[in-house]
Amino acid sequence: MAEISLSFPDGNVKSFEDGVNALEIAKSISNSLAKKAVSGRLDGELVSLTQPLHKDGKIEILTTADAEGLQVLRQTGAQILKMAISQNFPNVLFGESEADEDGFFVDTDKPETQISVDELDGLADAMKKIIDQKLPIATEEISVDEALQLVAGDQYQEALIKDNAVNDRVFINQIGDFKALSEGVTLPDTGSVKFFKLLSVAGAYWQGKSSNPMLQRIYATAFFKEADLDEDLKQRQEARERDHRVIGNQLDLFFVDPKVGAGLPYWMPNGATIRRTLERYIIDREVESGYQHVYTPVLANLDLYKQSGHWDHYREDMFPPMDMGEGEMLELRPMNCPSHIQIYKHHIRSYRELPLRIAEIGMMHRYEKSGALSGLQRVREMELNDGHTFVALEQIEKEFQSILKLMVSVYHDFDINDYTFRLSYRDPENTEKYFDDDEMWNRAQSMLKSAMDDMGLEYTEAEGEAAFYGPKLDVQTKTALGNEETLSTIQLDFMLPEQFDLHYVGEDGEQHRPVMIHRGIISTMERFTAYLTEIYKGAFPTWLAPHQVRIIPVSEQKHGEYAEKLNEDLRRHHIRSDVDARPEKMGYLIRDAQTNKIPYTLVVGDAEMNDNTVSVRQYGHEDSKEVNFEDFVSYVQKDLESYSRATDAEL
Amino acid sequence: MAEISLSFPDGNVKSFEDGVNALEIAKSISNSLAKKAVSGRLDGELVSLTQPLHKDGKIEILTTADAEGLQVLRQTGAQILKMAISQNFPNVLFGESEADEDGFFVDTDKPETQISVDELDGLADAMKKIIDQKLPIATEEISVDEALQLVAGDQYQEALIKDNAVNDRVFINQIGDFKALSEGVTLPDTGSVKFFKLLSVAGAYWQGKSSNPMLQRIYATAFFKEADLDEDLKQRQEARERDHRVIGNQLDLFFVDPKVGAGLPYWMPNGATIRRTLERYIIDREVESGYQHVYTPVLANLDLYKQSGHWDHYREDMFPPMDMGEGEMLELRPMNCPSHIQIYKHHIRSYRELPLRIAEIGMMHRYEKSGALSGLQRVREMELNDGHTFVALEQIEKEFQSILKLMVSVYHDFDINDYTFRLSYRDPENTEKYFDDDEMWNRAQSMLKSAMDDMGLEYTEAEGEAAFYGPKLDVQTKTALGNEETLSTIQLDFMLPEQFDLHYVGEDGEQHRPVMIHRGIISTMERFTAYLTEIYKGAFPTWLAPHQVRIIPVSEQKHGEYAEKLNEDLRRHHIRSDVDARPEKMGYLIRDAQTNKIPYTLVVGDAEMNDNTVSVRQYGHEDSKEVNFEDFVSYVQKDLESYSRATDAEL
Repeated sequence: MAEISLSFPDGNVKSFEDGVNALEIAKSISNSLAKKAVSGRLDGELVSLTQPLHKDGKIEILTTADAEGLQVLRQTGAQILKMAISQNFPNVLFGESEADEDGFFVDTDKPETQISVDELDGLADAMKKIIDQKLPIATEEISVDEALQLVAGDQYQEALIKDNAVNDRVFINQIGDFKALSEGVTLPDTGSVKFFKLLSVAGAYWQGKSSNPMLQRIYATAFFKEADLDEDLKQRQEARERDHRVIGNQLDLFFVDPKVGAGLPYWMPNGATIRRTLERYIIDREVESGYQHVYTPVLANLDLYKQSGHWDHYREDMFPPMDMGEGEMLELRPMNCPSHIQIYKHHIRSYRELPLRIAEIGMMHRYEKSGALSGLQRVREMELNDGHTFVALEQIEKEFQSILKLMVSVYHDFDINDYTFRLSYRDPENTEKYFDDDEMWNRAQSMLKSAMDDMGLEYTEAEGEAAFYGPKLDVQTKTALGNEETLSTIQLDFMLPEQFDLHYVGEDGEQHRPVMIHRGIISTMERFTAYLTEIYKGAFPTWLAPHQVRIIPVSEQKHGEYAEKLNEDLRRHHIRSDVDARPEKMGYLIRDAQTNKIPYTLVVGDAEMNDNTVSVRQYGHEDSKEVNFEDFVSYVQKDLESYSRATDAEL
Repeated sequence: MAEISLSFPDGNVKSFEDGVNALEIAKSISNSLAKKAVSGRLDGELVSLTQPLHKDGKIEILTTADAEGLQVLRQTGAQILKMAISQNFPNVLFGESEADEDGFFVDTDKPETQISVDELDGLADAMKKIIDQKLPIATEEISVDEALQLVAGDQYQEALIKDNAVNDRVFINQIGDFKALSEGVTLPDTGSVKFFKLLSVAGAYWQGKSSNPMLQRIYATAFFKEADLDEDLKQRQEARERDHRVIGNQLDLFFVDPKVGAGLPYWMPNGATIRRTLERYIIDREVESGYQHVYTPVLANLDLYKQSGHWDHYREDMFPPMDMGEGEMLELRPMNCPSHIQIYKHHIRSYRELPLRIAEIGMMHRYEKSGALSGLQRVREMELNDGHTFVALEQIEKEFQSILKLMVSVYHDFDINDYTFRLSYRDPENTEKYFDDDEMWNRAQSMLKSAMDDMGLEYTEAEGEAAFYGPKLDVQTKTALGNEETLSTIQLDFMLPEQFDLHYVGEDGEQHRPVMIHRGIISTMERFTAYLTEIYKGAFPTWLAPHQVRIIPVSEQKHGEYAEKLNEDLRRHHIRSDVDARPEKMGYLIRDAQTNKIPYTLVVGDAEMNDNTVSVRQYGHEDSKEVNFEDFVSYVQKDLESYSRATDAEL
């Protein structure tokens, strides 16, 4: 009988009968390994425990401890879910299924009404039965023709079979009498998928294209240990409570409709109020700090981005140019820097004007892949809190510090504490990869470092992380979903002043080249609103809250007029208040105000009317307080003036 | 000898010798007519007085009293100007020349340095000499080949000759030894162009395309009577003083660089301050009035504008769609209405929510021809003070009134008084041309009219001026250049709610169709800023002025610190102040503040420092006042709070 020769990770080489499988190999080493074994890996490629092996190569045994082992478990879970679905809904069609580090999903298209979240319990029960039976999972290679017959009438499976075919053959899994296209290595039987959870149902376009039909995606996850599943579900719950897309929907902040425009959010009145407050806040802070705010067009001749280098280096993130005829090509800007350079160049600049600080809430367009888009966090149209200061080389340190001071002070106003600073330098081993001016780099890098030290700020240093055109400081934070994200940046740029031949007239009467500093304090309005939504879990501080005060009359007939009078008074004081006099029970109306995370709920009845008081309930508190109305107004005004930071004042 | 038969406007028909000219015909009628005659018109086409006529037709004699007569005079002026230019600058090349109701111009390209404004006097002198000589102007038809030889080396003239050729022949004018392409009918000699003025010089692209070379255009005008010329020059002076492009440049409000983007203004810090103030003002007024402000994307799938009908009916004003691949076509929006409809449709709406008022400072793009672009008045990218209210049919009158009230109150804040109201109805004779719902039209039109009457507003009514989809109210005004312009609009729309199948649930629990009202109060930020610049002649009221207070220390060394302290005090009170401590003479600095039309100039010296006072000079006043600093602050605060409307308070 023929033999094959397999080498192990520790260097050992052993011979086995041709047709041996990974489970037998594991047993030949130890029973305990065989017990933990989940799959094999031959020459880097996953093989199931029961798949006969016919060639020499490097063999590994993957166990429940390996990340890829978890994926095999989840792939098995996906197959079991498909079987359960086909049992409960015989006419269902199947799109893709997938297992990854996050869990697994199966796409379905059920004629007439789609599978809904209400049907997940029934599916979980059906899965449990399949699991309890420890049914063997057989994998078989068949011809594409046979496979197509198997799935006849399911256009999605037909397409997937054609996509997966190698030499006109595909692999098929069989569990009991259920046969389906194999989309990855599975465990030998259904019995190991003990700890799973069906999570949610959501629409997903077939093949991810918005022009294709919308399928229903069933999300699930599975683990080898119950404790791991519980921890994961807890984290998911926590993330869901923070997820700006979920809160954004609950609080009616924004929506995105991929049919109308993927990555193009519509800000509903509540979200727009937050954004407007943010915009005014940061503009006012910047104007106070000596910035000159401008408005510049989102379109420019493509030549501008050829000159800036964006077209050469950044084209794949840019929108396609519009051909206006007569040689005019217009481009949606991917960045605002060239626009602010136009502002700089519009006058001859003198050293007396430096640092010249140009700022704008600048709309930009970037072509993100539709799969990368996410709520307000990753979008295709965005407004950046952008600023460019033009400085003399020797002014870098002082200007950098002044930007940092503004940044830290802004974080303080938003009560942002969870962030880290990272300084990015050029790679000292490969200086030829960078803009060619050693003295500039050395001085600039040491100025940034010394500025940070001087302010007593902690930071990490990353050599080789600088952009081609200059060193930078990033402020990093994390989203609810655990992605790292840049909150603010200060980026030095030696190159654009060259590209655009910028000058200023020095005290010596000669022309000098300025350095440009790109800086964003609160990033884009989209991303920052998403970030704030997550850190506040939707309970926005009063100054940002879309609705600041809700007034509920005990009886509309008796107290409605008084409620309206208070409402008008509050609005005259620029407090965003409203009256809720819907014919519902008091308890319902108060709960509704809490659900909407409104900072102050006032209940007014006879007592309040007689005493010119209000019964105030602050968001998150269980109790109410009787307060004189004028005192309440002053309290809210102080709250607003202090950006809702903790004050000593008692309500 | 052959004869031709000519009929006169009064119906008379006369025979003349073949080859007779218009001057001879005029003489045949009366000497006085011959004296006033400027040209003839045969079958609607202008013919010069001396051109032999060879065919039967309808003849008219145009005189100095006809508008077209003026154009013949100016065409003659243009030929004389070209002759003068060729005398003073022998190597000059000629682009187009043109005469119209506004005057005439000649485009030139002078090798090395272009003709400048300093050379206009010399050219006027040369013209006067040509005019005084009463040189005959001969017009001759020659072959294109001959003509091309005549202008050899002038590529512009060569192109014009080819463009003007009919049957390979063109007309040439000859004055003395100067020969040039005839670009219109002229007078028989140079003597009549007595009252002319060379006005200005400005760059103009050859053939109006920004990809072509920039020529120098010499602007001029001419009249038959000296008094007419004087009146015209006075009006031009007045328009220049009001022209927002001129003031925009003087006050550094904005610029447009056609090389970077025609019709795409850059708002410099001064202009941006005005715009920001406008935006915040109108948003706050609207929010107070129950509008819900939103932000919606400037891009959408082209399908949205197919559904709205814009793509069918408005395509030529739209930007080209961007092909994003996978069938995704994105379009820059030409209007915001479809976006606000998305907001409406995002929830099921109840009658309790109506009128639902959605508003936005919405960016839109419209493809205007480059020749139509003008400063901030006609642009390709604009932000509209847009609002859409969704109402039940029976709510139209009340909502219309509430919009009108807001509008009139806003005009009051801006001190806008020079406008007229115009109601546009459908044509009662052609109702089939309009959205088909007689009852809706009748009720809506009578509601608009009754609302106007109820408010005691004067208005004109224009039958047949309504849009296809509903009646409207326009508020009309005039620009400095005399163009009529729409300041505000309230437009009813029965159609879009149909196109997008909009509903609300009525008190009866049934679905009903809302009516949509499009309304703009202060039009686009661009157009309104241009308009305000013109009505204020750049002297913006304090609340809008980019710089509100300028502080000048008598001596920087002695009073600079005090000036800075006042400056900080003022800025803390949200007053836009700055210090001018340049080492220049006091008179110069004060004049500079006046040139920049800054509302308050404070001079501070020893006396002011000792007494905590300031010496205040208000813009447009010759005298200064000594005022206690705190009193000054209160005065300015009152000024700001009252939108700088006349107050009783004395400074």
